[in-house]
Amino acid sequence: MPVNLPALLPDTLHPVPGVRLGVTEAGIRKANRRDLTVIELAAEARVAGVFTQNRFCAAPVQVCRTHLAQGSARALVINTGVANAGTGDQGMLDARTTCVAAARALNIAPEQVLPFSTGVILEPLPVERLTAGLPGAVAALRADGWFDAAHAIMTTDTVPKGVSRRIRIDERDITITGISKGAGMIRPNMATMLGFLATDAVVSQPLLERLAREAADLSFNSITVDGDTSTNDSFILIATGQAGNAEIADDTSPAWLALREAVIAAAIELAQAIVRDGEGATKFMTIAVKGGRDRAECRAVAYAIGQSPLVKTAFFASDPNLGRILAAIGYAGIADLDVSQLRVWLGDVLVAEHGGRAASYREEDGARIMADAEIGITVDLARGQADATVWTCDFSYDYVKINADYRS
Amino acid sequence: MPVNLPALLPDTLHPVPGVRLGVTEAGIRKANRRDLTVIELAAEARVAGVFTQNRFCAAPVQVCRTHLAQGSARALVINTGVANAGTGDQGMLDARTTCVAAARALNIAPEQVLPFSTGVILEPLPVERLTAGLPGAVAALRADGWFDAAHAIMTTDTVPKGVSRRIRIDERDITITGISKGAGMIRPNMATMLGFLATDAVVSQPLLERLAREAADLSFNSITVDGDTSTNDSFILIATGQAGNAEIADDTSPAWLALREAVIAAAIELAQAIVRDGEGATKFMTIAVKGGRDRAECRAVAYAIGQSPLVKTAFFASDPNLGRILAAIGYAGIADLDVSQLRVWLGDVLVAEHGGRAASYREEDGARIMADAEIGITVDLARGQADATVWTCDFSYDYVKINADYRS
Repeated sequence: MPVNLPALLPDTLHPVPGVRLGVTEAGIRKANRRDLTVIELAAEARVAGVFTQNRFCAAPVQVCRTHLAQGSARALVINTGVANAGTGDQGMLDARTTCVAAARALNIAPEQVLPFSTGVILEPLPVERLTAGLPGAVAALRADGWFDAAHAIMTTDTVPKGVSRRIRIDERDITITGISKGAGMIRPNMATMLGFLATDAVVSQPLLERLAREAADLSFNSITVDGDTSTNDSFILIATGQAGNAEIADDTSPAWLALREAVIAAAIELAQAIVRDGEGATKFMTIAVKGGRDRAECRAVAYAIGQSPLVKTAFFASDPNLGRILAAIGYAGIADLDVSQLRVWLGDVLVAEHGGRAASYREEDGARIMADAEIGITVDLARGQADATVWTCDFSYDYVKINADYRS
Repeated sequence: MPVNLPALLPDTLHPVPGVRLGVTEAGIRKANRRDLTVIELAAEARVAGVFTQNRFCAAPVQVCRTHLAQGSARALVINTGVANAGTGDQGMLDARTTCVAAARALNIAPEQVLPFSTGVILEPLPVERLTAGLPGAVAALRADGWFDAAHAIMTTDTVPKGVSRRIRIDERDITITGISKGAGMIRPNMATMLGFLATDAVVSQPLLERLAREAADLSFNSITVDGDTSTNDSFILIATGQAGNAEIADDTSPAWLALREAVIAAAIELAQAIVRDGEGATKFMTIAVKGGRDRAECRAVAYAIGQSPLVKTAFFASDPNLGRILAAIGYAGIADLDVSQLRVWLGDVLVAEHGGRAASYREEDGARIMADAEIGITVDLARGQADATVWTCDFSYDYVKINADYRS
C-alpha cells in the first residue's frame, strides 16, 4: 500500500498533442503482463534526457545517450522484465536491434529511437520476443494511452504513477503529462529508474535541456528508497511543440518561469510517487536540511539520515529513537561540523540542540509525530545559508520480503 | 544465531598478567542484567586507543581521548544501556563524574580512568546508578574476569565475543586476550563499537599506537553490518608490560613482527565475530576486491557491495541475483571504471567478465555457492595492484525486527 498516494484515474492524464502511446504483452520475462511500451513523438518534438551515473549503466542507456546527441528523437521503446544491464557486447547489439525494429515499424530512422529497459540485471534481453511484440504496440498507439503506459512500465511498483498539469502561456493551454516507475534500487544519481514527462509547449533545445537537469536535480535526484543507484535510471523531458505558443528561448521571460515551475512541480510529484510506493513503505519522510555552507553538504546530511537502516527501521516501528538521526548527521562526512550549534526537529517538535536532547522535548510529543504516515525531519546546521530536501520512506519487513523474492 | 561462531568457553580466555576485570548489575537501563564493567591495569601498562570519527561522538569518547593524551591509564569503566551520546554538556559532566568515582574506588587519579558507554543515544546517563555500582564491580576484580566482561558489555549481541592467543617472544610466553561487542550500528570508521585487546608484552608507546591503528584498519575498520557508523566506536589496545621480554621498540625486529601478526589476527577474529553475530545475520560474506589503483577505491567497491540492501537481501534469500553486485560496483564512485575489464567471482565461480555474464556461468553453480552460510565475493578491477577485504552479513527480517523493537 503506497503512502498517501491517491489512486491514478485514467481521465486525469491529459493527452499531450504530438505524443501517442501504445502497449502490448510481449512476454519478455513473464506471460500475461503488459511489458512493452512504444511512445511516438511528432516530427517537431524536442527531447532532453538525464541518465544514471552508474558505471555499469545499461546498454539502452548508452544507446539513448548516443541517439539523443545525434538529434531528433521520434520514438521511445520501453520494456520491463529484463534491464539489459551487465550484458556486455550482446546487450549493445540487442539495444540496437530494438531500435532497428522499432524504426521499421514506425517508418523512421533507427537513430530516432530511444530504447529503455528495466528489470533483472545480468540476464540477456530476449530481443526476438521484444521485436515480435513491437507491431502490436505500434498498432495500439493512441493519444490517450498515458494511463496504459503508466501500467506497462511497472515492475515491483504496486500502483501506476502519473501526473498531469495544465498552464496558460501566451493565452494558450499548455499541457504537461508524465509517468514514472520504480520502487526499489532507488537512489538516483542524475535521474531515476524511468521517468517520462511531456509537454506540448514550444521551447528551445538549450532551455529544454537545462530544464531536464534542473527538474531531475530537484525531484528524482532528491529521493532514496534503499540507497542503491540503478543501472538504468533515465529521465526524459519531451516538448512536442504543438501548443502554438511563441518559442520559449529567453530564461528571463514569464513564459519560461511558468513552464519551469510547472515542469519541476510535476517532476517532484512523480518522484515523490516513487517514494510513496517504495518497496515495503509504510511512512513517507521529508528530510529538510538548512543552514549549510553549500547544497552538497545539506544533501549529504539528508541522505545520511534518509539511507540509515537504523533510522528507517525506527520510523517503521513509529519509535522516536531519535539518537539514530544524530548518529547519521555525525557520520555524514562534514569534518568540521560543530554539533553543539545544530538543531533537529521532528515535525514541529524541537528534539535536539546544544549537542543533546532539547530541554523542552517530551517523548510523548515525539511519539505523536511518529504515529503519522507522513513525517518531516528538519535539521538546521547553523553554519550557512544553503538548504536541500530529500524524500524517503521507512524500512519494513516487506522490503526484505520483496527483495528476497524478486526473481522468483 | 550467529554464523559459524563457535561458542565462547570461559577457559579459552587466558588471563593477561597486569589486567583484572570485574562486573556488576548496576541497573543502568534494565534490571537483572550485568551492565557495568571495570578493567584495572597494572601501573606499568601502556594503552593506545582508536575512536569513532562520528562528529556526534559520545561524551566518554571525548573524555577518553583527553585522558589518553594526558598519559597513564590505570582503569577502564564500561557501561551498557545508555550510550551517553547526544547528551551535550550534561553528558560530559556525567562522564567526568564516572571517572572521579572510579578513581576514588581504585585509589588512582580521575585522569587515569577511561570511560566507555554503549546503548541508546540521546538519553541521559543515570550516573548515580553507575557510580553506586562501581564498588561492586571493583570488589569483583579478578584476573580471569574476561569471560564475564565479554558478557557484561553486550547489548543486542546474542553471544559474547572473545579471543585469546599465546606467542613466544624472547623465549617467554606472551598472552593476547581481547573482547568485543556490537551487532548493529556497525560500520566503524577508525574503530568499532567496543573492542578491548590486551597483551602482557613490553612494547614501546609509539609502536603500541601504530599497532592499534594498523590492527583497527585491518579488522574493525573493515566490517559493516548496516553502514551506520556509531557515536561510541572505541578500540583499545593495552600492553601491561608484565611478560619480561626486552622492550619491543624496533619495527624491524622479529619480536615486533611476531607481536604485530598475532595482535592483528586477534583483532580480525574479534571484528569478524561482530559480523557473524550481526543483527539478524544468517550469512557471513567476505568481499575481496583486488586489482585497484589504491586501497581506498578497493574499499569503496567492497563497501558498496557490502552495504547494498539489495545485495544483502538477495544473500538472505540465497538467490544468486548477481546483477545487484554489478550495480553496486557501478555506483561505488570510480568515475573512470572500465566495466568491460573487471571480473567478478562468487566463491570459485566466475560470474561476470567483458561487461556481462561470463559465458561459462551456470545458474546452478551460483545457487550452489549461495546455499552456504559462508560466502566469498571476489572482484578484480584490473586496473592496479591494490586490494582490500571487507566482511559483512546479510539483511534479514530479523534485522528489521530487532531494530524496530530495540528500545521497547
